[in-house]
Amino acid sequence: MSERKKTNIILFSGDYDKVMAAYIIANGAAAYDHDVTIFHTFWGLNTLRKDEKLQPKKSFMEKMFAKMMPRGAENMPLSKMQFLGMGPKMIKKVMKKHNAMPVSDLVDLAKEQDIKLLACTMTMDLLGLKKEELMDDIEYGGVAAYIADGEDGAINLFI
Amino acid sequence: MSERKKTNIILFSGDYDKVMAAYIIANGAAAYDHDVTIFHTFWGLNTLRKDEKLQPKKSFMEKMFAKMMPRGAENMPLSKMQFLGMGPKMIKKVMKKHNAMPVSDLVDLAKEQDIKLLACTMTMDLLGLKKEELMDDIEYGGVAAYIADGEDGAINLFI
Amino acid sequence: MSERKKTNIILFSGDYDKVMAAYIIANGAAAYDHDVTIFHTFWGLNTLRKDEKLQPKKSFMEKMFAKMMPRGAENMPLSKMQFLGMGPKMIKKVMKKHNAMPVSDLVDLAKEQDIKLLACTMTMDLLGLKKEELMDDIEYGGVAAYIADGEDGAINLFI
Repeated sequence: MSERKKTNIILFSGDYDKVMAAYIIANGAAAYDHDVTIFHTFWGLNTLRKDEKLQPKKSFMEKMFAKMMPRGAENMPLSKMQFLGMGPKMIKKVMKKHNAMPVSDLVDLAKEQDIKLLACTMTMDLLGLKKEELMDDIEYGGVAAYIADGEDGAINLFI
Repeated sequence: MSERKKTNIILFSGDYDKVMAAYIIANGAAAYDHDVTIFHTFWGLNTLRKDEKLQPKKSFMEKMFAKMMPRGAENMPLSKMQFLGMGPKMIKKVMKKHNAMPVSDLVDLAKEQDIKLLACTMTMDLLGLKKEELMDDIEYGGVAAYIADGEDGAINLFI
Repeated sequence: MSERKKTNIILFSGDYDKVMAAYIIANGAAAYDHDVTIFHTFWGLNTLRKDEKLQPKKSFMEKMFAKMMPRGAENMPLSKMQFLGMGPKMIKKVMKKHNAMPVSDLVDLAKEQDIKLLACTMTMDLLGLKKEELMDDIEYGGVAAYIADGEDGAINLFI
Protein backbone atom coordinates (compact mmCIF):
# COMPACT_ATOMS: atom_id res chain seq x y z
CA MET A 1 0.00 0.00 0.00
CA SER A 2 1.31 3.43 -0.90
CA GLU A 3 2.26 5.77 1.92
CA ARG A 4 1.11 8.79 -0.01
CA LYS A 5 -1.93 10.60 1.32
CA LYS A 6 -5.07 10.68 -0.76
CA THR A 7 -7.38 13.54 -1.68
CA ASN A 8 -10.71 12.62 -3.28
CA ILE A 9 -13.06 15.24 -4.60
CA ILE A 10 -16.59 14.54 -5.78
CA LEU A 11 -17.28 17.32 -8.26
CA PHE A 12 -21.07 17.50 -8.50
CA SER A 13 -21.37 21.18 -9.37
CA GLY A 14 -21.19 22.65 -12.85
CA ASP A 15 -20.62 26.24 -11.72
CA TYR A 16 -17.44 27.92 -12.93
CA ASP A 17 -16.40 29.17 -9.50
CA LYS A 18 -16.97 25.82 -7.77
CA VAL A 19 -15.16 23.90 -10.49
CA MET A 20 -12.30 26.39 -10.13
CA ALA A 21 -12.21 25.81 -6.36
CA ALA A 22 -12.19 22.03 -6.88
CA TYR A 23 -9.29 22.14 -9.32
CA ILE A 24 -7.27 24.58 -7.20
CA ILE A 25 -7.58 22.28 -4.17
CA ALA A 26 -6.82 19.21 -6.30
CA ASN A 27 -3.72 20.78 -7.85
CA GLY A 28 -2.63 22.05 -4.44
CA ALA A 29 -2.96 18.58 -2.91
CA ALA A 30 -1.03 17.03 -5.82
CA ALA A 31 1.75 19.59 -5.30
CA TYR A 32 1.94 18.32 -1.70
CA ASP A 33 2.37 14.76 -3.00
CA HIS A 34 -1.17 13.50 -2.47
CA ASP A 35 -2.69 10.95 -4.82
CA VAL A 36 -5.65 12.93 -6.09
CA THR A 37 -8.87 11.82 -7.75
CA ILE A 38 -11.64 14.07 -9.00
CA PHE A 39 -14.85 12.09 -9.41
CA HIS A 40 -17.02 14.06 -11.86
CA THR A 41 -20.73 13.44 -11.42
CA PHE A 42 -23.95 15.18 -12.49
CA TRP A 43 -23.26 18.76 -13.67
CA GLY A 44 -19.56 18.42 -12.81
CA LEU A 45 -19.31 16.09 -15.81
CA ASN A 46 -19.60 19.13 -18.06
CA THR A 47 -16.04 20.06 -17.05
CA LEU A 48 -14.87 17.08 -19.08
CA ARG A 49 -16.92 17.81 -22.20
CA LYS A 50 -15.05 18.65 -25.37
CA ASP A 51 -15.80 22.10 -26.75
CA GLU A 52 -16.97 20.67 -30.09
CA LYS A 53 -20.44 20.10 -31.42
CA LEU A 54 -20.62 16.34 -31.80
CA GLN A 55 -23.74 14.58 -32.97
CA PRO A 56 -23.81 11.11 -31.44
CA LYS A 57 -27.10 9.23 -31.75
CA LYS A 58 -29.30 10.46 -28.92
CA SER A 59 -32.90 10.36 -27.81
CA PHE A 60 -34.89 13.60 -27.83
CA MET A 61 -34.46 14.06 -24.08
CA GLU A 62 -30.72 13.41 -24.31
CA LYS A 63 -30.42 15.96 -27.11
CA MET A 64 -32.20 18.51 -24.96
CA PHE A 65 -29.86 17.94 -22.03
CA ALA A 66 -26.85 18.07 -24.36
CA LYS A 67 -28.03 21.40 -25.74
CA MET A 68 -28.67 23.00 -22.37
CA MET A 69 -25.47 21.87 -20.67
CA PRO A 70 -22.19 23.75 -21.21
CA ARG A 71 -19.43 22.09 -23.20
CA GLY A 72 -16.39 22.52 -20.93
CA ALA A 73 -15.69 24.69 -17.91
CA GLU A 74 -15.10 27.88 -19.89
CA ASN A 75 -18.75 27.93 -20.90
CA MET A 76 -20.12 27.52 -17.37
CA PRO A 77 -22.12 30.05 -15.36
CA LEU A 78 -21.15 31.28 -11.88
CA SER A 79 -22.95 29.99 -8.76
CA LYS A 80 -23.50 33.63 -7.68
CA MET A 81 -23.23 37.08 -9.15
CA GLN A 82 -24.41 36.22 -12.62
CA PHE A 83 -24.94 39.98 -13.27
CA LEU A 84 -27.33 39.23 -16.14
CA GLY A 85 -24.81 36.85 -17.65
CA MET A 86 -21.80 39.14 -17.27
CA GLY A 87 -20.46 37.36 -14.15
CA PRO A 88 -18.28 34.71 -15.79
CA LYS A 89 -16.78 37.26 -18.19
CA MET A 90 -16.01 39.63 -15.30
CA ILE A 91 -14.39 36.92 -13.22
CA LYS A 92 -12.27 35.82 -16.16
CA LYS A 93 -11.18 39.40 -16.84
CA VAL A 94 -10.11 39.87 -13.22
CA MET A 95 -8.41 36.47 -13.26
CA LYS A 96 -6.42 37.45 -16.32
CA LYS A 97 -5.39 40.71 -14.68
CA HIS A 98 -4.16 38.78 -11.63
CA ASN A 99 -2.46 36.13 -13.77
CA ALA A 100 -4.78 33.50 -12.32
CA MET A 101 -5.22 30.38 -14.45
CA PRO A 102 -8.56 29.86 -16.19
CA VAL A 103 -10.22 26.55 -15.32
CA SER A 104 -9.31 24.96 -18.66
CA ASP A 105 -5.62 25.51 -17.77
CA LEU A 106 -6.21 24.11 -14.26
CA VAL A 107 -7.60 20.96 -15.91
CA ASP A 108 -4.48 20.67 -18.09
CA LEU A 109 -2.29 21.18 -15.03
CA ALA A 110 -4.24 18.46 -13.22
CA LYS A 111 -3.48 16.03 -16.04
CA GLU A 112 0.23 16.95 -15.95
CA GLN A 113 0.23 16.28 -12.21
CA ASP A 114 -1.32 12.83 -12.81
CA ILE A 115 -4.54 13.69 -11.04
CA LYS A 116 -7.06 10.97 -11.86
CA LEU A 117 -10.04 12.50 -13.65
CA LEU A 118 -12.93 10.09 -13.36
CA ALA A 119 -16.33 10.34 -15.03
CA CYS A 120 -19.33 8.83 -13.26
CA THR A 121 -20.82 6.33 -15.70
CA MET A 122 -24.21 6.29 -14.00
CA THR A 123 -24.78 10.02 -14.54
CA MET A 124 -23.40 9.78 -18.07
CA ASP A 125 -26.20 7.32 -18.80
CA LEU A 126 -28.74 9.54 -17.10
CA LEU A 127 -27.75 12.71 -18.94
CA GLY A 128 -27.09 10.87 -22.18
CA LEU A 129 -23.40 11.84 -22.35
CA LYS A 130 -21.29 9.57 -24.58
CA LYS A 131 -17.58 8.82 -24.16
CA GLU A 132 -16.83 10.48 -27.51
CA GLU A 133 -18.13 13.77 -26.09
CA LEU A 134 -15.70 13.70 -23.15
CA MET A 135 -11.94 14.29 -23.06
CA ASP A 136 -9.81 11.37 -24.14
CA ASP A 137 -7.44 10.81 -21.23
CA ILE A 138 -9.90 10.20 -18.41
CA GLU A 139 -11.16 7.17 -16.49
CA TYR A 140 -14.64 5.83 -15.90
CA GLY A 141 -16.31 4.39 -12.84
CA GLY A 142 -19.31 4.32 -10.56
CA VAL A 143 -19.97 4.76 -6.86
CA ALA A 144 -17.89 1.64 -6.04
CA ALA A 145 -14.82 3.32 -7.50
CA TYR A 146 -15.46 6.36 -5.34
CA ILE A 147 -15.93 4.40 -2.10
CA ALA A 148 -12.71 2.45 -2.76
CA ASP A 149 -10.73 5.70 -3.06
CA GLY A 150 -12.72 7.68 -0.52
CA GLU A 151 -12.42 5.29 2.39
CA ASP A 152 -8.66 5.82 2.48
CA GLY A 153 -8.80 9.54 1.83
CA ALA A 154 -7.04 12.03 4.06
CA ILE A 155 -9.15 14.76 2.47
CA ASN A 156 -12.60 13.94 1.06
CA LEU A 157 -14.77 16.74 -0.28
CA PHE A 158 -18.12 17.07 -2.05
CA ILE A 159 -18.17 20.20 -4.18
CA MET B 1 -15.18 -0.44 19.10
CA SER B 2 -16.38 -1.70 15.75
CA GLU B 3 -13.83 -2.24 13.00
CA ARG B 4 -16.29 -1.20 10.31
CA LYS B 5 -15.53 2.01 8.48
CA LYS B 6 -17.92 4.92 8.83
CA THR B 7 -19.47 7.20 6.24
CA ASN B 8 -21.26 10.30 7.53
CA ILE B 9 -23.17 12.58 5.24
CA ILE B 10 -24.60 15.94 6.25
CA LEU B 11 -27.53 16.45 3.89
CA PHE B 12 -28.17 20.20 3.92
CA SER B 13 -29.59 20.52 0.42
CA GLY B 14 -33.19 20.03 -0.58
CA ASP B 15 -32.53 19.70 -4.31
CA TYR B 16 -33.64 16.45 -5.96
CA ASP B 17 -30.33 15.85 -7.71
CA LYS B 18 -28.21 16.50 -4.62
CA VAL B 19 -30.43 14.32 -2.43
CA MET B 20 -30.13 11.60 -5.07
CA ALA B 21 -26.32 11.90 -5.02
CA ALA B 22 -26.29 11.71 -1.21
CA TYR B 23 -28.41 8.56 -1.11
CA ILE B 24 -26.47 6.86 -3.92
CA ILE B 25 -23.19 7.44 -2.06
CA ALA B 26 -24.77 6.33 1.22
CA ASN B 27 -26.19 3.14 -0.26
CA GLY B 28 -22.90 2.46 -2.02
CA ALA B 29 -20.93 2.85 1.21
CA ALA B 30 -23.39 0.56 3.04
CA ALA B 31 -22.95 -2.05 0.30
CA TYR B 32 -19.21 -1.88 1.07
CA ASP B 33 -19.94 -2.57 4.74
CA HIS B 34 -19.60 0.94 6.09
CA ASP B 35 -21.72 2.12 9.00
CA VAL B 36 -23.54 4.99 7.36
CA THR B 37 -25.37 7.97 8.84
CA ILE B 38 -27.20 10.66 6.93
CA PHE B 39 -27.65 13.73 9.09
CA HIS B 40 -30.57 15.69 7.60
CA THR B 41 -30.43 19.40 8.34
CA PHE B 42 -32.06 22.54 6.90
CA TRP B 43 -33.66 21.84 3.48
CA GLY B 44 -32.38 18.26 3.53
CA LEU B 45 -34.99 17.60 6.23
CA ASN B 46 -37.66 17.74 3.54
CA THR B 47 -36.43 14.35 2.32
CA LEU B 48 -37.88 12.87 5.51
CA ARG B 49 -41.27 14.59 5.29
CA LYS B 50 -44.32 12.40 4.80
CA ASP B 51 -46.25 13.11 1.63
CA GLU B 52 -49.46 13.84 3.54
CA LYS B 53 -51.04 17.13 4.44
CA LEU B 54 -50.89 17.16 8.22
CA GLN B 55 -52.12 20.07 10.27
CA PRO B 56 -50.14 20.18 13.50
CA LYS B 57 -50.52 23.35 15.56
CA LYS B 58 -48.15 25.90 14.08
CA SER B 59 -47.41 29.59 14.21
CA PHE B 60 -48.09 31.69 11.12
CA MET B 61 -44.42 31.65 10.13
CA GLU B 62 -44.15 27.91 10.61
CA LYS B 63 -47.25 27.38 8.45
CA MET B 64 -45.69 29.49 5.73
CA PHE B 65 -42.47 27.46 5.78
CA ALA B 66 -44.48 24.23 5.80
CA LYS B 67 -46.43 25.36 2.76
CA MET B 68 -43.39 26.43 0.75
CA MET B 69 -41.22 23.40 1.50
CA PRO B 70 -41.67 20.14 -0.46
CA ARG B 71 -43.11 17.10 1.29
CA GLY B 72 -40.62 14.36 0.44
CA ALA B 73 -37.90 14.07 -2.17
CA GLU B 74 -40.23 13.37 -5.08
CA ASN B 75 -41.61 16.89 -4.80
CA MET B 76 -38.23 18.63 -4.81
CA PRO B 77 -36.80 20.91 -7.51
CA LEU B 78 -33.45 20.38 -9.24
CA SER B 79 -30.39 22.46 -8.31
CA LYS B 80 -29.91 23.25 -12.02
CA MET B 81 -31.83 22.93 -15.27
CA GLN B 82 -35.24 23.71 -13.89
CA PHE B 83 -36.48 24.30 -17.47
CA LEU B 84 -39.46 26.31 -16.22
CA GLY B 85 -40.34 23.55 -13.78
CA MET B 86 -39.96 20.67 -16.25
CA GLY B 87 -36.49 19.65 -15.00
CA PRO B 88 -37.50 17.21 -12.26
CA LYS B 89 -40.08 15.55 -14.52
CA MET B 90 -37.49 15.17 -17.30
CA ILE B 91 -34.87 13.69 -14.98
CA LYS B 92 -37.41 11.22 -13.59
CA LYS B 93 -38.47 10.18 -17.08
CA VAL B 94 -34.86 9.52 -18.10
CA MET B 95 -34.24 7.73 -14.82
CA LYS B 96 -37.19 5.45 -15.45
CA LYS B 97 -35.93 4.70 -18.95
CA HIS B 98 -32.52 3.75 -17.53
CA ASN B 99 -34.08 1.74 -14.70
CA ALA B 100 -32.51 4.11 -12.17
CA MET B 101 -34.21 4.23 -8.77
CA PRO B 102 -36.20 7.34 -7.86
CA VAL B 103 -35.04 8.97 -4.63
CA SER B 104 -38.01 7.65 -2.65
CA ASP B 105 -36.83 4.10 -3.48
CA LEU B 106 -33.25 5.03 -2.56
CA VAL B 107 -34.57 6.13 0.85
CA ASP B 108 -36.35 2.78 1.28
CA LEU B 109 -33.17 0.95 0.26
CA ALA B 110 -31.21 3.00 2.80
CA LYS B 111 -33.57 1.85 5.54
CA GLU B 112 -33.22 -1.78 4.45
CA GLN B 113 -29.45 -1.41 4.59
CA ASP B 114 -29.70 -0.05 8.15
CA ILE B 115 -28.41 3.37 7.23
CA LYS B 116 -29.08 5.68 10.16
CA LEU B 117 -31.38 8.51 9.05
CA LEU B 118 -31.05 11.32 11.52
CA ALA B 119 -33.08 14.53 11.68
CA CYS B 120 -31.45 17.66 13.07
CA THR B 121 -33.66 18.79 15.94
CA MET B 122 -32.32 22.34 15.92
CA THR B 123 -33.44 22.97 12.34
CA MET B 124 -36.75 21.19 13.00
CA ASP B 125 -37.40 23.82 15.66
CA LEU B 126 -36.31 26.60 13.35
CA LEU B 127 -38.47 25.54 10.40
CA GLY B 128 -41.33 24.45 12.63
CA LEU B 129 -41.24 20.81 11.55
CA LYS B 130 -42.91 18.40 14.00
CA LYS B 131 -42.01 14.73 14.52
CA GLU B 132 -45.46 13.67 13.29
CA GLU B 133 -44.66 15.22 9.90
CA LEU B 134 -41.50 13.13 9.44
CA MET B 135 -41.08 9.43 8.67
CA ASP B 136 -41.53 7.08 11.58
CA ASP B 137 -38.34 5.02 11.64
CA ILE B 138 -35.73 7.77 11.97
CA GLU B 139 -33.54 9.12 14.76
CA TYR B 140 -33.14 12.60 16.18
CA GLY B 141 -30.09 14.55 17.26
CA GLY B 142 -28.16 17.78 17.18
CA VAL B 143 -24.65 18.86 16.27
CA ALA B 144 -23.18 16.79 19.13
CA ALA B 145 -24.56 13.62 17.51
CA TYR B 146 -22.90 14.60 14.25
CA ILE B 147 -19.48 15.35 15.76
CA ALA B 148 -19.52 12.02 17.62
CA ASP B 149 -20.08 10.13 14.36
CA GLY B 150 -18.07 12.44 12.14
CA GLU B 151 -14.83 12.38 14.10
CA ASP B 152 -14.43 8.66 13.38
CA GLY B 153 -15.60 8.88 9.78
CA ALA B 154 -13.55 7.45 6.93
CA ILE B 155 -15.74 9.46 4.54
CA ASN B 156 -17.38 12.71 5.72
CA LEU B 157 -19.30 14.81 3.25
CA PHE B 158 -21.45 17.95 3.31
CA ILE B 159 -24.00 17.89 0.52
CA MET C 1 2.12 16.77 17.55
CA SER C 2 -1.10 17.54 19.31
CA GLU C 3 -3.46 14.68 20.13
CA ARG C 4 -6.51 16.86 19.61
CA LYS C 5 -8.70 16.02 16.65
CA LYS C 6 -9.00 18.54 13.85
CA THR C 7 -12.04 19.87 12.01
CA ASN C 8 -11.39 21.90 8.85
CA ILE C 9 -14.17 23.63 7.00
CA ILE C 10 -13.79 25.27 3.61
CA LEU C 11 -16.49 27.93 3.57
CA PHE C 12 -17.06 28.70 -0.10
CA SER C 13 -20.70 29.73 0.13
CA GLY C 14 -21.97 33.18 0.94
CA ASP C 15 -25.54 32.11 1.73
CA TYR C 16 -26.82 32.92 5.22
CA ASP C 17 -28.12 29.41 5.90
CA LYS C 18 -24.94 27.68 4.73
CA VAL C 19 -22.71 30.05 6.69
CA MET C 20 -24.90 29.37 9.73
CA ALA C 21 -24.49 25.59 9.25
CA ALA C 22 -20.71 25.99 8.91
CA TYR C 23 -20.40 28.01 12.11
CA ILE C 24 -22.73 25.70 14.09
CA ILE C 25 -20.63 22.67 13.10
CA ALA C 26 -17.40 24.55 13.82
CA ASN C 27 -18.56 25.71 17.25
CA GLY C 28 -19.86 22.21 18.02
CA ALA C 29 -16.53 20.62 17.09
CA ALA C 30 -14.65 23.18 19.22
CA ALA C 31 -16.94 22.37 22.16
CA TYR C 32 -15.83 18.73 21.70
CA ASP C 33 -12.18 19.83 21.92
CA HIS C 34 -11.32 19.76 18.25
CA ASP C 35 -8.84 22.23 16.79
CA VAL C 36 -11.05 23.97 14.26
CA THR C 37 -10.20 26.03 11.20
CA ILE C 38 -12.65 27.74 8.87
CA PHE C 39 -11.01 28.52 5.56
CA HIS C 40 -13.04 31.32 3.97
CA THR C 41 -12.85 31.40 0.19
CA PHE C 42 -14.86 32.97 -2.65
CA TRP C 43 -18.28 34.16 -1.41
CA GLY C 44 -17.60 32.78 2.08
CA LEU C 45 -15.11 35.64 2.49
CA ASN C 46 -18.07 38.00 2.84
CA THR C 47 -18.66 36.52 6.30
CA LEU C 48 -15.47 38.27 7.41
CA ARG C 49 -16.28 41.67 5.90
CA LYS C 50 -16.77 44.56 8.27
CA ASP C 51 -20.19 46.17 8.12
CA GLU C 52 -18.73 49.58 7.27
CA LYS C 53 -18.48 51.37 3.97
CA LEU C 54 -14.75 51.62 3.42
CA GLN C 55 -13.26 53.19 0.32
CA PRO C 56 -9.90 51.57 -0.34
CA LYS C 57 -8.34 52.28 -3.73
CA LYS C 58 -9.91 49.84 -6.18
CA SER C 59 -10.24 49.24 -9.87
CA PHE C 60 -13.67 49.66 -11.49
CA MET C 61 -14.28 45.90 -11.50
CA GLU C 62 -13.22 45.57 -7.87
CA LYS C 63 -15.58 48.39 -6.91
CA MET C 64 -18.41 46.62 -8.70
CA PHE C 65 -17.75 43.36 -6.85
CA ALA C 66 -17.46 45.24 -3.57
CA LYS C 67 -20.83 46.88 -4.16
CA MET C 68 -22.65 43.69 -5.08
CA MET C 69 -21.26 41.52 -2.29
CA PRO C 70 -22.75 41.64 1.21
CA ARG C 71 -20.75 43.16 4.05
CA GLY C 72 -20.94 40.48 6.76
CA ALA C 73 -23.20 37.49 7.28
CA GLU C 74 -26.20 39.47 8.48
CA ASN C 75 -26.56 40.99 5.04
CA MET C 76 -26.48 37.68 3.15
CA PRO C 77 -29.32 36.05 1.20
CA LEU C 78 -30.58 32.51 1.78
CA SER C 79 -29.65 29.64 -0.55
CA LYS C 80 -33.37 28.78 -0.85
CA MET C 81 -36.71 30.31 0.00
CA GLN C 82 -35.81 33.88 -0.77
CA PHE C 83 -39.56 34.73 -0.80
CA LEU C 84 -38.93 37.90 -2.83
CA GLY C 85 -36.22 38.93 -0.40
CA MET C 86 -38.20 38.21 2.77
CA GLY C 87 -36.46 34.87 3.45
CA PRO C 88 -33.51 36.09 5.54
CA LYS C 89 -35.78 38.33 7.62
CA MET C 90 -38.19 35.45 8.25
CA ILE C 91 -35.43 33.06 9.25
CA LYS C 92 -33.97 35.65 11.63
CA LYS C 93 -37.37 36.28 13.18
CA VAL C 94 -37.91 32.56 13.80
CA MET C 95 -34.35 32.25 15.10
CA LYS C 96 -34.96 35.03 17.60
CA LYS C 97 -38.20 33.36 18.74
CA HIS C 98 -36.30 30.10 19.32
CA ASN C 99 -33.39 31.89 20.99
CA ALA C 100 -31.07 30.69 18.23
CA MET C 101 -27.93 32.76 17.73
CA PRO C 102 -27.68 34.94 14.64
CA VAL C 103 -24.60 34.21 12.52
CA SER C 104 -22.77 37.32 13.70
CA ASP C 105 -22.97 35.93 17.26
CA LEU C 106 -21.81 32.51 16.05
CA VAL C 107 -18.75 34.24 14.56
CA ASP C 108 -18.04 35.94 17.90
CA LEU C 109 -18.45 32.60 19.70
CA ALA C 110 -16.04 31.01 17.22
CA LYS C 111 -13.42 33.62 18.10
CA GLU C 112 -13.95 33.03 21.82
CA GLN C 113 -13.46 29.31 21.24
CA ASP C 114 -10.18 30.01 19.42
CA ILE C 115 -11.45 28.73 16.11
CA LYS C 116 -8.96 29.81 13.45
CA LEU C 117 -10.69 32.06 10.92
CA LEU C 118 -8.61 32.10 7.77
CA ALA C 119 -9.13 34.24 4.68
CA CYS C 120 -8.03 32.87 1.31
CA THR C 121 -5.59 35.41 -0.09
CA MET C 122 -5.98 34.21 -3.67
CA THR C 123 -9.71 34.95 -3.74
CA MET C 124 -9.16 38.24 -1.92
CA ASP C 125 -6.99 39.27 -4.86
CA LEU C 126 -9.55 38.03 -7.34
CA LEU C 127 -12.50 39.80 -5.76
CA GLY C 128 -10.45 42.86 -4.86
CA LEU C 129 -11.01 42.54 -1.10
CA LYS C 130 -8.42 44.37 1.03
CA LYS C 131 -7.31 43.42 4.54
CA GLU C 132 -8.72 46.69 5.91
CA GLU C 133 -12.19 45.56 4.81
CA LEU C 134 -12.00 42.31 6.78
CA MET C 135 -12.21 41.69 10.53
CA ASP C 136 -9.04 42.35 12.48
CA ASP C 137 -8.38 39.12 14.34
CA ILE C 138 -8.15 36.67 11.46
CA GLU C 139 -5.37 34.85 9.63
CA TYR C 140 -4.43 34.72 5.97
CA GLY C 141 -3.33 31.88 3.73
CA GLY C 142 -3.67 30.04 0.46
CA VAL C 143 -4.35 26.50 -0.64
CA ALA C 144 -1.09 25.27 0.94
CA ALA C 145 -2.37 26.35 4.35
CA TYR C 146 -5.56 24.40 3.75
CA ILE C 147 -3.83 21.19 2.64
CA ALA C 148 -1.52 21.32 5.68
CA ASP C 149 -4.53 21.46 8.03
CA GLY C 150 -6.83 19.29 5.95
CA GLU C 151 -4.57 16.28 5.59
CA ASP C 152 -4.70 15.70 9.34
CA GLY C 153 -8.39 16.47 9.69
CA ALA C 154 -10.80 14.09 11.39
CA ILE C 155 -13.65 16.06 9.84
CA ASN C 156 -13.11 17.93 6.54
CA LEU C 157 -16.05 19.64 4.90
CA PHE C 158 -16.64 21.88 1.87
CA ILE C 159 -19.65 24.11 2.45
